[in-house]
Amino acid sequence: MTPAFEKLQKHLKQLPGLGFRSSERIALHLLVEKPERLPALVEALQEAARSVRRCLRCGNLAEGDLCGVCADARREGGVVCVVEQVPDLVAIERSGAYRGCYHVLHGKLSPIHGVGPGDLNFASLLGRVAGGEVHELILALSNDVEGEATCHYLTEQLAAAGRPVKVTRIGFGIPSGGGVLYADSITLKSALDGRRDYS
Amino acid sequence: MTPAFEKLQKHLKQLPGLGFRSSERIALHLLVEKPERLPALVEALQEAARSVRRCLRCGNLAEGDLCGVCADARREGGVVCVVEQVPDLVAIERSGAYRGCYHVLHGKLSPIHGVGPGDLNFASLLGRVAGGEVHELILALSNDVEGEATCHYLTEQLAAAGRPVKVTRIGFGIPSGGGVLYADSITLKSALDGRRDYS
Repeated sequence: MTPAFEKLQKHLKQLPGLGFRSSERIALHLLVEKPERLPALVEALQEAARSVRRCLRCGNLAEGDLCGVCADARREGGVVCVVEQVPDLVAIERSGAYRGCYHVLHGKLSPIHGVGPGDLNFASLLGRVAGGEVHELILALSNDVEGEATCHYLTEQLAAAGRPVKVTRIGFGIPSGGGVLYADSITLKSALDGRRDYS
Repeated sequence: MTPAFEKLQKHLKQLPGLGFRSSERIALHLLVEKPERLPALVEALQEAARSVRRCLRCGNLAEGDLCGVCADARREGGVVCVVEQVPDLVAIERSGAYRGCYHVLHGKLSPIHGVGPGDLNFASLLGRVAGGEVHELILALSNDVEGEATCHYLTEQLAAAGRPVKVTRIGFGIPSGGGVLYADSITLKSALDGRRDYS
């Protein structure tokens, strides 16, 4: 193939979920099968890069100052679900199980990867709590050591700020459709730790 | 999500092999996780769209007048493998089983889809044969009714032109209803080795 083709394929291959064959197939699609789609894709990429920014309140994707969730008056502003990344927020929205607002940290504390409190979106979350309109924080962070450390740091900061707010953490355990047999040890430990009265 | 995000996702979803979730994941990757990759991808797309064209001789992708195969003096110019699409050529090249040249028809005869002889790259193939340097045509077209019709049309045109050329068709290994694009390298090698007289 030609150098420009191979360069395009290399860039496509860096995208999540695309390997050698799928990136080759997409490059051929855009250059041979449907070349009319290429300028439209370029325009959509450029427009998104130009207009999509972070919500000033919660850190979600937004085109104005506020994201669609924060700008929606029907959402319960007093309940804030704290997530690591925008895709986590998207997954919770897709479940249709939540009507509150969000706060996106854009990561989790990870000393081994050089991610400290200053790299995450903590300050504006503490500001929202200090503002007084938040009465519950739901921590929807990962079920791993780094997620645990992030939850711990956050509750310490909230205690130091001296404003009482209810803090919960989403339940961990066996996923829907899953059996005990196929769960890993950490999941089983969380499931046992998180057991509830059943009578 | 935002309108520009959804527009980008819609364009990504049109690409082969990408569905709702994988296009969402790629859009989030380019806008949130690795925004520095987006301009490089746009540039690679634009450069490929600008510089990649059709080889004047065989119809393959090229950046100059001739593609990499036609420009390579070590390739056997007297043997021409006729394929429907550039991805078919790529699949045969990947098998490493072929050292001749190619001719890309950019489709196959299909009255039901309104594809007639005038829509395909036949004229320059007949021109190459009339030029006298071709002594064997290997028809690597699909093993289906349309591929059959295309082979039949081509041999009739060659007979009418009155220049004797050996015509073979690949045959072993390609399953009925399948195309060259999806065959593995070993299947393609046996298909090339097992070509039979067709005229």
